[in-house]
Amino acid sequence: MEDKIIEVVKANENFYLAIKNSDFDQMEGLWVRDESVKCVHPGWPMLHGWEAVSQSWKNIFENSGPLDIELRDVESQISGNSGWVICIEKISYKIEDEIHSGYAQSTNIFKLDGAKWLLALHHASPVPAPRGDVSSNEVLQ
Amino acid sequence: MEDKIIEVVKANENFYLAIKNSDFDQMEGLWVRDESVKCVHPGWPMLHGWEAVSQSWKNIFENSGPLDIELRDVESQISGNSGWVICIEKISYKIEDEIHSGYAQSTNIFKLDGAKWLLALHHASPVPAPRGDVSSNEVLQ
Repeated sequence: MEDKIIEVVKANENFYLAIKNSDFDQMEGLWVRDESVKCVHPGWPMLHGWEAVSQSWKNIFENSGPLDIELRDVESQISGNSGWVICIEKISYKIEDEIHSGYAQSTNIFKLDGAKWLLALHHASPVPAPRGDVSSNEVLQ
Repeated sequence: MEDKIIEVVKANENFYLAIKNSDFDQMEGLWVRDESVKCVHPGWPMLHGWEAVSQSWKNIFENSGPLDIELRDVESQISGNSGWVICIEKISYKIEDEIHSGYAQSTNIFKLDGAKWLLALHHASPVPAPRGDVSSNEVLQ
């Protein structure tokens, strides 16, 4: 069980690394890649199936500038060969010389496929900045 | 597998019935009721653990008027003794003589406990009205 938790948290980190790197090849290797997968980008309606989900990542990677994603309050649970990781994403991006940040709450469901945990569902929704957090609009040093 | 899908969809329906009925006793029987449970009401930060989650339902049931919830695009998946149901909630409520509606996308994760599917996580987030849907502001006949 302990090993599975370490693995699923690592799979979750790899997912955010792929976003941070705008790396579609990396992203593609992290999903179940069939008609069952689901993805909700913050504020979007749910996308159903790998074709729609993969196209959304391609569009995001092509159209957004560099993103930084910092994870907070990461928690995971394993139930047999599935597991879920919940976390808050602090998403920062630069417009001209200013860094803007927004927060999303994510639920990520993974399924164990052989030795690999693959994403079956990603649901992210906008949330207010956590209490005590710095301003969501920081001037780049 | 087919039986499990029927059961988990039924558990999901019972969850929305409890909301519709503002019935806390019914709601209480549907959750895992330990520190691991998570709940995101639309636009809220995630609540962790049964104490916070149960308190939120009590507050909602005490403070909101009658709600009607209609489910759309319900899909479910089973993986061993866990399963998840995703659906769009059309939430309608009456202010004076007008019915107002809003939409949320939900991810609901259930765990099989003996013969019963219990909610481990509920994540609802606001989404725009589906295309072709009637106005989100209907005058009551």
